[in-house]
Amino acid sequence: MNIKANNPALTSWISVDANSDFPIQNLPFGIYSDSTVKHHACSAIGNYAIDLYELASRGFFSKLNIDKEVFNKAYLNDFIELGKDATRALRDRLSELLDSNNKELQDNKEVFASIFKANNSINLLLPVKVGDYTDFYSSIDHATNIGTMIRDPKNALMPNWKYIPVGYHGRASSITVSGTDLYRPKGQMKPADAEVPTFGPCKLLDFELETAFIIGKASKLGESISTEKADDYIFGMVLFNDWSARDIQTWEYVPLGPFLSKNFASTISPWIVTLDALEPFRTEGYVQEPKVFPYLEYTGNKNVDIKLEVAIQPENSTETVICNSNYKYMYWTMEQQLAHHTVNGCNVNVGDMMGSGTISGPDPKEYGSMMELSWKGTKPLKLNDGSERKFINDNDTVILRGYCTNNKTRIGFGECKAKLLPAI
Amino acid sequence: MNIKANNPALTSWISVDANSDFPIQNLPFGIYSDSTVKHHACSAIGNYAIDLYELASRGFFSKLNIDKEVFNKAYLNDFIELGKDATRALRDRLSELLDSNNKELQDNKEVFASIFKANNSINLLLPVKVGDYTDFYSSIDHATNIGTMIRDPKNALMPNWKYIPVGYHGRASSITVSGTDLYRPKGQMKPADAEVPTFGPCKLLDFELETAFIIGKASKLGESISTEKADDYIFGMVLFNDWSARDIQTWEYVPLGPFLSKNFASTISPWIVTLDALEPFRTEGYVQEPKVFPYLEYTGNKNVDIKLEVAIQPENSTETVICNSNYKYMYWTMEQQLAHHTVNGCNVNVGDMMGSGTISGPDPKEYGSMMELSWKGTKPLKLNDGSERKFINDNDTVILRGYCTNNKTRIGFGECKAKLLPAI
Repeated sequence: MNIKANNPALTSWISVDANSDFPIQNLPFGIYSDSTVKHHACSAIGNYAIDLYELASRGFFSKLNIDKEVFNKAYLNDFIELGKDATRALRDRLSELLDSNNKELQDNKEVFASIFKANNSINLLLPVKVGDYTDFYSSIDHATNIGTMIRDPKNALMPNWKYIPVGYHGRASSITVSGTDLYRPKGQMKPADAEVPTFGPCKLLDFELETAFIIGKASKLGESISTEKADDYIFGMVLFNDWSARDIQTWEYVPLGPFLSKNFASTISPWIVTLDALEPFRTEGYVQEPKVFPYLEYTGNKNVDIKLEVAIQPENSTETVICNSNYKYMYWTMEQQLAHHTVNGCNVNVGDMMGSGTISGPDPKEYGSMMELSWKGTKPLKLNDGSERKFINDNDTVILRGYCTNNKTRIGFGECKAKLLPAI
Repeated sequence: MNIKANNPALTSWISVDANSDFPIQNLPFGIYSDSTVKHHACSAIGNYAIDLYELASRGFFSKLNIDKEVFNKAYLNDFIELGKDATRALRDRLSELLDSNNKELQDNKEVFASIFKANNSINLLLPVKVGDYTDFYSSIDHATNIGTMIRDPKNALMPNWKYIPVGYHGRASSITVSGTDLYRPKGQMKPADAEVPTFGPCKLLDFELETAFIIGKASKLGESISTEKADDYIFGMVLFNDWSARDIQTWEYVPLGPFLSKNFASTISPWIVTLDALEPFRTEGYVQEPKVFPYLEYTGNKNVDIKLEVAIQPENSTETVICNSNYKYMYWTMEQQLAHHTVNGCNVNVGDMMGSGTISGPDPKEYGSMMELSWKGTKPLKLNDGSERKFINDNDTVILRGYCTNNKTRIGFGECKAKLLPAI
């Protein structure tokens, strides 16, 4: 597929740092507010958010036949629902307007301030209204690590793991955007050596390094989406921190899965990077043995090479990067996850979110959770300020970052960041 | 609490059969469509739906200060969001208008046809847009039966079961209203004696007899709802069939819980019976031993005496009632479920739905699923037409019914009914 806006040769008349996540080839989508704007859809270039409602109002999208009101909503859902032809055409048009060789906007100095908002002057809001949220468990290193620690090292992977992209339903209401603080949850937990459970603030609060994809097209109840068609239903991706209360989880999760250990808060990054923008970074998937069922087979490079990192920043201190992982370590691809999710006829809606599961790589520095990095608390991590962490402390800020890069272009996600406040 | 509309002495000028689910003391809420109406909010009396938009348009609610447009939406969410003071006043006013002693509507013959729609001339639609759906597992007989069958008869209940109202997140997108057919799902399953899984249509398709409550008031992230305040957040209840594919479930559910075995379809009844209307049928809860944590303690009668039944109707045949259960068999009350769900700060929104879990009683005729009724398929049930069932057959219709009764009033839910079509 030739996507115009991805052309690596393009440069913008807006200056963009070489290490920016948002060159002209990215053009992700989000929602912002500032002192005068309640909620407008926006894109990003360099250090600016680009107000799409203002562009539409001034006729810059006049050939696209898009009602400008889709850019004046609290969420991107209505825009995304226009379909990939429309959102792709919009991204192409943005690329055109930002291109160094194009003068339409470049020479229109008086509109600049209304359209380009410096990132430090705005608030980025939750970009989509998530209808249903599903979380998968698709990193083989993560599943193996957890199975080794809490079950049986010799049979770390459950018998179903290589047949099924294991997933479960999560809570949509508590998904918040980067920058939203969260409270340490309270709950029941039972230490292994205790007779009975206790109640109180979670002691083993963890992050989970994940990405999530956002559904861009609805399916009908009864209908299945094939791996071949799956990309038509995936609008884009975000970074995702699936905060987890390990001690609450251990006590509650049998037999119906994680519940209060997860649903107190989840954090996503504010920019949805389109699947289109990620296309140049597709890479080979895992060799899957045993062979998967036909509905899970796929052709082509369906993994994505996204470099991921996690940093902890203690209160009034500098951050320490504690993990470097990569989305390419996923055993199951997004296309397989979506095919599996719908093989039984389950319907999806625009704005639904599907998490990858914790993304760990084979090297211990690539583990995507404190549970794995500190190996269940047995190997504390040393931070740059000299302090140690087995899990996340009160007032720590956890920052996820991710970007793709090749010798021509860097496409990034920005930050997915949130601070853990003490229990209420 | 003295709720005017519950007065058992009231009778209506609309004739209502003695065994109707919808006397003047019920006045549940729903959404209907017909040949002229796209979607209007409605209530029910006897065999009629009462068009609330038409009543509002004609000024019958003029003293209530309710924007009539809340009755002209696809879902009841905006109406429910007005709050219990408003919805209670509306129900009281309806009760007044329907009262034999009141002439306002009774003598207004020319508006009758616009306001009162015979049930057989309309379609009842999904009453709420469900944001998040949670399912609990709160019937002790059900949990004991399942634990006995699939795990260990000596330790049928998991160690956490009497401490935690165990629950998990479900899929909101596939919740449909009574009367919506569903397809037998396809998926992976692995018989106990097989080496590897197979793929195909589910062989062990089951119903689950449940009720669900609908959230009527939002809470904020970080906030907990006490058992004492919980009723303020519960608008009402529906019947709920949590269709389950047992063979898919057995293979997929470890370690993260049920997923595709549940999310292919769930059926709810169209009328939301208000918690207010159910108030006269409150009854004592279980003695809970061991003692629960303080956040789960409650006072007063918080169970509800709701008689429940399930019938199977094979294609072109008559129905057979196969189960008579009761909501009062719940070990954990709704108020405890909601307190638990939010003790970690998880927020709830208007329209969220929370299922009871399968409601089984102690007697084998009170078991709320085929899994239990046929004891894992070992004891087939005989239907009136001579056929046998271990699980649900293609083209069977499963019908849930429920009602409360005392020597004065009967408050019912109507039917929750759906037909299982063969796999696509």
